Amino acid sequence: MSEKHTIMDNALTYNDWLERFGFKIGKGVKGTKNTITDVEGVKVGHYTLSNEQVQTGITAILPHGDNLFREKLIAATYVMNGFGKSIGLMQIDELGTIETPILMTNTLSVGRVATGLVRYMLEQNPDIGVTAGSVNPVVCECNDGYLNEIRGLHLQEEDVFKAIERCEVDFEQGAVGAGTGMMAYNLKGGIGSSSRVVEFGGKMYTIGILVLSNFGRLNTFQIDGHKVGEAIKFGNEQVEQGSMIAILATDLPLNERQLKRTLKRIPAGMARTGAHFGNGSGDVFFGFSTARRVNYLESEDIIDIKAINENRIDRVFNAAIEATEEAILNSMFYARTTTGKDGRCLHSIMEYDELIK
Amino acid sequence: MSEKHTIMDNALTYNDWLERFGFKIGKGVKGTKNTITDVEGVKVGHYTLSNEQVQTGITAILPHGDNLFREKLIAATYVMNGFGKSIGLMQIDELGTIETPILMTNTLSVGRVATGLVRYMLEQNPDIGVTAGSVNPVVCECNDGYLNEIRGLHLQEEDVFKAIERCEVDFEQGAVGAGTGMMAYNLKGGIGSSSRVVEFGGKMYTIGILVLSNFGRLNTFQIDGHKVGEAIKFGNEQVEQGSMIAILATDLPLNERQLKRTLKRIPAGMARTGAHFGNGSGDVFFGFSTARRVNYLESEDIIDIKAINENRIDRVFNAAIEATEEAILNSMFYARTTTGKDGRCLHSIMEYDELIK
Amino acid sequence: MSEKHTIMDNALTYNDWLERFGFKIGKGVKGTKNTITDVEGVKVGHYTLSNEQVQTGITAILPHGDNLFREKLIAATYVMNGFGKSIGLMQIDELGTIETPILMTNTLSVGRVATGLVRYMLEQNPDIGVTAGSVNPVVCECNDGYLNEIRGLHLQEEDVFKAIERCEVDFEQGAVGAGTGMMAYNLKGGIGSSSRVVEFGGKMYTIGILVLSNFGRLNTFQIDGHKVGEAIKFGNEQVEQGSMIAILATDLPLNERQLKRTLKRIPAGMARTGAHFGNGSGDVFFGFSTARRVNYLESEDIIDIKAINENRIDRVFNAAIEATEEAILNSMFYARTTTGKDGRCLHSIMEYDELIK
Amino acid sequence: MSEKHTIMDNALTYNDWLERFGFKIGKGVKGTKNTITDVEGVKVGHYTLSNEQVQTGITAILPHGDNLFREKLIAATYVMNGFGKSIGLMQIDELGTIETPILMTNTLSVGRVATGLVRYMLEQNPDIGVTAGSVNPVVCECNDGYLNEIRGLHLQEEDVFKAIERCEVDFEQGAVGAGTGMMAYNLKGGIGSSSRVVEFGGKMYTIGILVLSNFGRLNTFQIDGHKVGEAIKFGNEQVEQGSMIAILATDLPLNERQLKRTLKRIPAGMARTGAHFGNGSGDVFFGFSTARRVNYLESEDIIDIKAINENRIDRVFNAAIEATEEAILNSMFYARTTTGKDGRCLHSIMEYDELIK
Repeated sequence: MSEKHTIMDNALTYNDWLERFGFKIGKGVKGTKNTITDVEGVKVGHYTLSNEQVQTGITAILPHGDNLFREKLIAATYVMNGFGKSIGLMQIDELGTIETPILMTNTLSVGRVATGLVRYMLEQNPDIGVTAGSVNPVVCECNDGYLNEIRGLHLQEEDVFKAIERCEVDFEQGAVGAGTGMMAYNLKGGIGSSSRVVEFGGKMYTIGILVLSNFGRLNTFQIDGHKVGEAIKFGNEQVEQGSMIAILATDLPLNERQLKRTLKRIPAGMARTGAHFGNGSGDVFFGFSTARRVNYLESEDIIDIKAINENRIDRVFNAAIEATEEAILNSMFYARTTTGKDGRCLHSIMEYDELIK
Repeated sequence: MSEKHTIMDNALTYNDWLERFGFKIGKGVKGTKNTITDVEGVKVGHYTLSNEQVQTGITAILPHGDNLFREKLIAATYVMNGFGKSIGLMQIDELGTIETPILMTNTLSVGRVATGLVRYMLEQNPDIGVTAGSVNPVVCECNDGYLNEIRGLHLQEEDVFKAIERCEVDFEQGAVGAGTGMMAYNLKGGIGSSSRVVEFGGKMYTIGILVLSNFGRLNTFQIDGHKVGEAIKFGNEQVEQGSMIAILATDLPLNERQLKRTLKRIPAGMARTGAHFGNGSGDVFFGFSTARRVNYLESEDIIDIKAINENRIDRVFNAAIEATEEAILNSMFYARTTTGKDGRCLHSIMEYDELIK
Repeated sequence: MSEKHTIMDNALTYNDWLERFGFKIGKGVKGTKNTITDVEGVKVGHYTLSNEQVQTGITAILPHGDNLFREKLIAATYVMNGFGKSIGLMQIDELGTIETPILMTNTLSVGRVATGLVRYMLEQNPDIGVTAGSVNPVVCECNDGYLNEIRGLHLQEEDVFKAIERCEVDFEQGAVGAGTGMMAYNLKGGIGSSSRVVEFGGKMYTIGILVLSNFGRLNTFQIDGHKVGEAIKFGNEQVEQGSMIAILATDLPLNERQLKRTLKRIPAGMARTGAHFGNGSGDVFFGFSTARRVNYLESEDIIDIKAINENRIDRVFNAAIEATEEAILNSMFYARTTTGKDGRCLHSIMEYDELIK
Repeated sequence: MSEKHTIMDNALTYNDWLERFGFKIGKGVKGTKNTITDVEGVKVGHYTLSNEQVQTGITAILPHGDNLFREKLIAATYVMNGFGKSIGLMQIDELGTIETPILMTNTLSVGRVATGLVRYMLEQNPDIGVTAGSVNPVVCECNDGYLNEIRGLHLQEEDVFKAIERCEVDFEQGAVGAGTGMMAYNLKGGIGSSSRVVEFGGKMYTIGILVLSNFGRLNTFQIDGHKVGEAIKFGNEQVEQGSMIAILATDLPLNERQLKRTLKRIPAGMARTGAHFGNGSGDVFFGFSTARRVNYLESEDIIDIKAINENRIDRVFNAAIEATEEAILNSMFYARTTTGKDGRCLHSIMEYDELIK
């Protein structure tokens, strides 16, 4: 099975496209790269499996470049719709920290990817299972069974290492990694990202979002208030499969409660693209702050942390909503038309630019 | 202090207005009256205090016309943003039932209105506090302090009886009852309602929504995707106060979990009008089903209840999202321009119809 | 109606009693006074209504002596059983802070006491409802309807001021304030308190607990593993009413998540006295830390806070469990035999000391 | 690696033992076998790996004998302490149903066991991943790293099939299956079970509990109020690892909310054996009712379900608390002394019967 190595050949096209139609997502200031890796230290990597029947993969997000088990980060989760199989949420909610990279994959591969991640953590940390208890792998998923022969469980534990090793600041979006087989608004979806910059205490901080989009029905799809989905409408519209994973990263010192409040606004960004939050939809969100590392072997009994002034948190909420909306659009505009299982095809929205005009 | 008795003189205007501009909210079928009272047995009543400094009131929702303490209804709550003071949620979450009418008022009057409601329940039920334990009053609130001299605590315990006694199938919307002093998108907000009809098992059921709107900033306000707020933009835009209460009623036999899942979609309806879910916003939702009464003196050990087939719940989700969106718009279109505390004025959106064109 | 002014005449008796039987609650070190006011700044006050038919009151806890609305404290809640009517939890969960004293009373008086508390806060803070939004009153309750003519709503809004004004470091326990009419294990219950001292970073900190006990059936009651309830067993055992409120105070810098984790251990302290957590039981817990004040008018965008090293939190858990167990026992040993509504009588456990031997 | 096939040779001994010392757990009526399989249709099976360095395994619980994916059961979860890695909770909470057997294993093997369970479900259901979406595997865990070389990930995906195939009504307790390497109160723990019978509507129903015990410090251990742990006290007491999984099964028609309320009482049963609910403790509980099957291909829009009269739920609470307490004791009394990794040994409580006398 060959691995697909795509290049970011339509990156420019998207900006062109937006400009051409005069769309504008939100009022905030974007980060330099307009991706989650605008948050210093965050990296993203993909492992992609793409052939006729198999369209799937793994996407890894590294919250920082050091040993995450020893230097945990403050984190939170929010479940908009729990009809999903993502794992690792319970411990994050209890302890307010993450201690592994965050992985994304297809629904039935969560177990294998979790084991691969455990093995990666064991390699890095000889004390896990000896003096240091266990480790909490975080793996999220959407169901790519429309394009991917998901019953085959084609991903292996070892593939996790490849996704993690390929983590970079510059990463591909669209039909790649965990996004290879995903469907958004009955068009091709997948991995998308965006970022916004906010000012706190005279310094600039970044809110970055990365989504795995796999939800929505074409007829409700809209961009910047324009009913684009109705313009496109083709005949063979599929029933909504319906899931989205979102990861929020920031270098702002949000505490776990503030992170959760922010994650709760992510559905507002989804709704602005036309989401209806159907039944069969695992909408699950994770957030972390890189501002303070929580040392696993902390020697102090009492530790200093920071939080933001709650009265100023709307800046963060707005940034998260806007970046989510734009990350979803990016996941679609970067995704190329893909043909998979049983010859099924999901079209890139880029094929419809004439219609939209 | 005189009480205001407005009449529904702008009801037609709103339909005219929608037609004039070609706006259409959602794709579903509306109930006969397009209000929450399309759900059989539900009634709504207002008590309004309106004079120069005081613009406030109470709105009561009667889930059914009999003794609610003896014949409880299955119910649920969902808190989108808990920066609020509504009461009664904890017991609904624990037991899955409501046992009183649902009242709405201003933030600082929750205690008085709760006591009034307790007194109303005591009058109806001589066994409460004797053989029957206590009773769980449900009172929700938004902060009308922009137009209303809220520190004066102008509402009295007795006023609750008036609001309940005035409950009718036909009720006023807009700047009335609890909505008298509320602000939506920096325009006049208040009470709004809408309903949708869905088919289950060959029969038609109703999803009704009533909102108390008190949120949003003008510059993000939109109708049916049109950026109406930007068109209106006047100079003295206020900071968002930010709260919305929504009550969902249905004659469909949703169980408490299914009700909660549905309530979780209400923010999607808010987002479609431009909501950003700011920090200072108590967004709190209640839902109940009239399909089965839970007898307080139930003699059976095991009881029959019904639920809907979860695979069909999207019909309910869509109806709730659409009805919420339209109820918010109704709360604004029915609300007349109101001048209150310190001469402050909130304008009805109806004043801007020329601009919107 | 005359107010009862009891004196702490059985305080010594309890210690004598414990010593006489060789009971010992836990292994930790008690605070100086073995009450919640061992936490510096915390004060407790009661307002008691006691005559033939009326046995009820208000208990107030002042978390610190300054303006709580302007200098909030980090706080959390945990609901073991939500069959109750306590208010104020939702906003604490959302924002992680309290901004008023914590009041306790009977179930049907929550509204009046909340209004009294709002009026107290309005007096202290002329900006509430003008420039400062609203205020979140915290009022908890148990049902004292066995001894108290609860339908009479005998407490008035003004009585709140008296309870708050009487707050002192030294306060009475047992059948006083909100505890006047309560029943624990079919004996007389009410207000009880205890504290434990823990070391963090070379300094000593206090975990204080105050309970309002109103739960339990005599036949399961135990002290330090001894089945005391079975020894006492009298004929006319009442059905469990079943509620307990607990307030945890500490000067340790627990954050809101750590406070909630600690509150979740309070039922373990209850279970050690024989609790079975029946259906009709509102078991609701609040916790706050005095370590850091959150300034309402905070000018900084980013604030410094502290937390404890999570690896050391078992010290806190153990202290909270032990102090809860002992506070429940104190609520019973300090409570004197009380006769109330319709001549009903609840006996003090002190009457049975011969039996227990 | 050889598999251990123990026999229930100390089953009688435990009853003898209880009788000898006059201990009695609770006041309720036990089921015929006093195990979770007293609930009709429930079966339990183990796969055990036991050699010098490896002491681990898998325990499977079959909720009924037919196709669980097609005939789901109403279910709920409760997390007392989320410092754990169990999976499958999120979807159960959202949808109120389970659709797979429940598996237990060691912490680091959750991924492999989940994949094994997915493969088992795929074999049984050719429509999963084709027309039927995906499947939600439920896998719970405790950390057996004291006796087991847990870093070796010795369990394989295929081993899941063996555990499921061995499911029987009669099953072994103690150091077997997932319990092979577990530690309770610094003695040998593992799998334990108990049941209680309750009457509803003139019929008898069963509440069954199965626990995987891996928590507690010897010095707080007690049986029926007797401080047995202090009597045993040996020198090399280990720090608490601290976790317990509990599965509750019943043929009573509890709905998902009633199941969750019941699960919330399980810690009371733990506390009665001396639990302190330490930080490093994943205490996670699952419950299901066999009373009604939820058909995956349900053709009706509205379905009939049942629930119990909430006023009678204390019978269920008491049964669950008692059965939990006794299941924990059973997990210890059935467990034989086990030597594992690095020659470490955990002793059976049965070795100390002379001391306890």
